Amino acid sequence: MPKPEILDPQGKAVQGALPRLGFTGVTDVRQGKRFEIELDGEVTDAVLAQVEKMAETLLSNPVIENYTVSVEQ
Amino acid sequence: MPKPEILDPQGKAVQGALPRLGFTGVTDVRQGKRFEIELDGEVTDAVLAQVEKMAETLLSNPVIENYTVSVEQ
Repeated sequence: MPKPEILDPQGKAVQGALPRLGFTGVTDVRQGKRFEIELDGEVTDAVLAQVEKMAETLLSNPVIENYTVSVEQ
Repeated sequence: MPKPEILDPQGKAVQGALPRLGFTGVTDVRQGKRFEIELDGEVTDAVLAQVEKMAETLLSNPVIENYTVSVEQ
């Protein structure tokens, strides 16, 4: 997701469109990316550390984006 | 996220780049979007139904994408 201090024009566009479509009560919208990564074998701590490294080096731009990694079996 | 039967060239590009960066063991990558929506007041069933409707009509393209809605307090 874009860091809180980073402008997010896509999110703002969505937020602007919502009232026109009849949706109210939304105070903020942020748009980011989501990656679903399928792995071979067991998710060990070492594998998870590798996925964190992927997220940091390839999947996100750490200058402007935060990321979280979560595991689904 | 793109539906399973939909081609995902961005995900495939990421998957192709991973071995070149030294990451192994990844069998599939899918790239989609994530929206963080802040709401005014309590998240009731009615509000949640409205957010589902937003996801279906504005935030996703239901022809090619699936979506899930989850609540974080």
